[in-house]
Amino acid sequence: MKKVGIASSGMTKFTKDDISIESLMVASVKPIFDGAKNLTQKDIDVVLTSTNSNEKYLANIVSELSGISPKTAHSVESLCNSGTNCIVSAYAYISSGLADVALVVGAEKNDSPGRVLNWDMSRGQYGHPIYWSSLFTSSHIRKYGTTMEDLARVSAKNHRNALNNPYSYFKHSYSFEEIMNSETLTDNVRLLDCSMTCNGSASILLASEDVINKFTDKPIWIKGIGQKSISAGFTKNNDLASMRSTSLASSDAYQLSHVSPSDIDVVELHDAFSICEIMALEDLGLAEKGKGSIYVKNLYETNDNRINPRGGLIGAGHPLGATGIAQTIEAYQQLQGLSGKRQIERAKTALVHNMSAAATSSTVLILQS
Amino acid sequence: MKKVGIASSGMTKFTKDDISIESLMVASVKPIFDGAKNLTQKDIDVVLTSTNSNEKYLANIVSELSGISPKTAHSVESLCNSGTNCIVSAYAYISSGLADVALVVGAEKNDSPGRVLNWDMSRGQYGHPIYWSSLFTSSHIRKYGTTMEDLARVSAKNHRNALNNPYSYFKHSYSFEEIMNSETLTDNVRLLDCSMTCNGSASILLASEDVINKFTDKPIWIKGIGQKSISAGFTKNNDLASMRSTSLASSDAYQLSHVSPSDIDVVELHDAFSICEIMALEDLGLAEKGKGSIYVKNLYETNDNRINPRGGLIGAGHPLGATGIAQTIEAYQQLQGLSGKRQIERAKTALVHNMSAAATSSTVLILQS
Repeated sequence: MKKVGIASSGMTKFTKDDISIESLMVASVKPIFDGAKNLTQKDIDVVLTSTNSNEKYLANIVSELSGISPKTAHSVESLCNSGTNCIVSAYAYISSGLADVALVVGAEKNDSPGRVLNWDMSRGQYGHPIYWSSLFTSSHIRKYGTTMEDLARVSAKNHRNALNNPYSYFKHSYSFEEIMNSETLTDNVRLLDCSMTCNGSASILLASEDVINKFTDKPIWIKGIGQKSISAGFTKNNDLASMRSTSLASSDAYQLSHVSPSDIDVVELHDAFSICEIMALEDLGLAEKGKGSIYVKNLYETNDNRINPRGGLIGAGHPLGATGIAQTIEAYQQLQGLSGKRQIERAKTALVHNMSAAATSSTVLILQS
Repeated sequence: MKKVGIASSGMTKFTKDDISIESLMVASVKPIFDGAKNLTQKDIDVVLTSTNSNEKYLANIVSELSGISPKTAHSVESLCNSGTNCIVSAYAYISSGLADVALVVGAEKNDSPGRVLNWDMSRGQYGHPIYWSSLFTSSHIRKYGTTMEDLARVSAKNHRNALNNPYSYFKHSYSFEEIMNSETLTDNVRLLDCSMTCNGSASILLASEDVINKFTDKPIWIKGIGQKSISAGFTKNNDLASMRSTSLASSDAYQLSHVSPSDIDVVELHDAFSICEIMALEDLGLAEKGKGSIYVKNLYETNDNRINPRGGLIGAGHPLGATGIAQTIEAYQQLQGLSGKRQIERAKTALVHNMSAAATSSTVLILQS
């Protein structure tokens, strides 16, 4: 099993501009070549695309448009968790020895067909994700006394963090008061508790330990991987105040990397809704169960940005198939010390948490410099 | 790099019946459990689905419907070459040590959105695959003197082979004369030179050398893998009488497996159209360039079924995302000696060839008992 590291990355700004998915992808691939020394198209063995788009053959299309003729090219889809599934698949190609260098390209349009899982009839007419987030919220309120203020702090913190992210969808930040007073969508979910789908693309270059030094002087290594799919339908979640796929995936990732929650310096977690950040902090073992809100309150009051430094999904926007890759790029740049105004000092170990469809599946990655 | 073998398989009959893609998938997963000893849902680490369907989260859906909670679950898409891309991806998970057991599930509906690649504007109004097959045919006729009779023999042979395949789409066979007289679609492509899209599902279980003996007494090993993507658009094919992605993929597969074309006992190749079988035989190194037609004539006249024994795509039908997996199942069963009436005697080494979109990409697998 060969070690696999990250050697370069590329992003587009998250927008609602009218642009094709192919153009989005090519725009995030270009900086991959600018960011890696000596990289040519011929070095790339595998091109995987991550998207919920209905367009076909995108991995081959983005390869052709970028001048690459890889061995392997295909698209990966698993709703909002497509991005890290794609990274783990590329990791497997390299780690197995089938490939040395893999390019992973995520992209989504804001009107993506991945926004609602029509198959899940268990949700009845309440198919939109705001409804599962509302059930998560009520369960967490009932079990742990979470408040609307606790939820607003997640969103306010992440919008504040996003101010230092030039790729963020939002042009300005939202305050705690604006979030508290934002439009009510359900009893306990407000508009500003939600991440917004948008256009965006994020690309990352992975390489094996045998060749990575050709492309970068400072590789960042993928040390831990954990994935778990509990189900596809919402009703198989038996405790709506926890995300079991997240806790199982994280315990595998910790075990594989020999890292414990207390070693983590920076976290990108999947705050699709405010409640998800509180629950993820608990289910990743970063906060005690039921204490996620206190953890966030402390971050918020001390201006601590080590959880979702780029603003998370709520602050930066959520281009579904690109999200897991954008999260991993943030972890990569933090560990390289290249995050500018949002740099976490002395960050050595990062965790990425990406999930789909009411946390029916999750991926956790642990990265180290 | 761990050895990876095939431990079980499952198929549905190819039809045009009204059935959902989820039901198709579940129907081919069931026989996986019947065919593997001691296999339980808990043994399965990875579930990958191969399809061009626009439905999302299918790997998680088929997992839930089959009682499986895997670590990794996602869909793979690369048009007609999705099936073997999915097998190679599952191979990588196991070979890298990330997983021990992977279930690969391919399925397609006959009205699949993968039938035409709308992105390829280079084809103008001639977007349907019959037009590239017609250009391939004219080029091969011009360069090598291929005749309409040569093409009809491919289809007649494969329809005859399909008579021994209980899963085939066709209820009866078509003779050489019927093919020669079938409806003309272009100057040199007749209706019966084409494979037909249909509904179908095919599933395969892969396992590492560490655990495979728990599930089968006769594993079949994936010894060679070759993949190549030249482009996505048709115009990058610079010689329309050859399929360069196929020759490059096969030379990698031969090299990895230390097998040469003369060692191959049985072949499943991607006869999307009659001309593709003639060209593939040449580009896989099984026939000299320009001599593919003579090779087929000999098979046809001697009743030799070792090329496309289940009838190929023309004889058995072409459910896009399931095709590469159905081809691999045929190779697996032939090497197990379990192919009944269509068994090739003493088959020890098999080759699978699967491709997409005017051979802009190809996968070649080499299997051994």
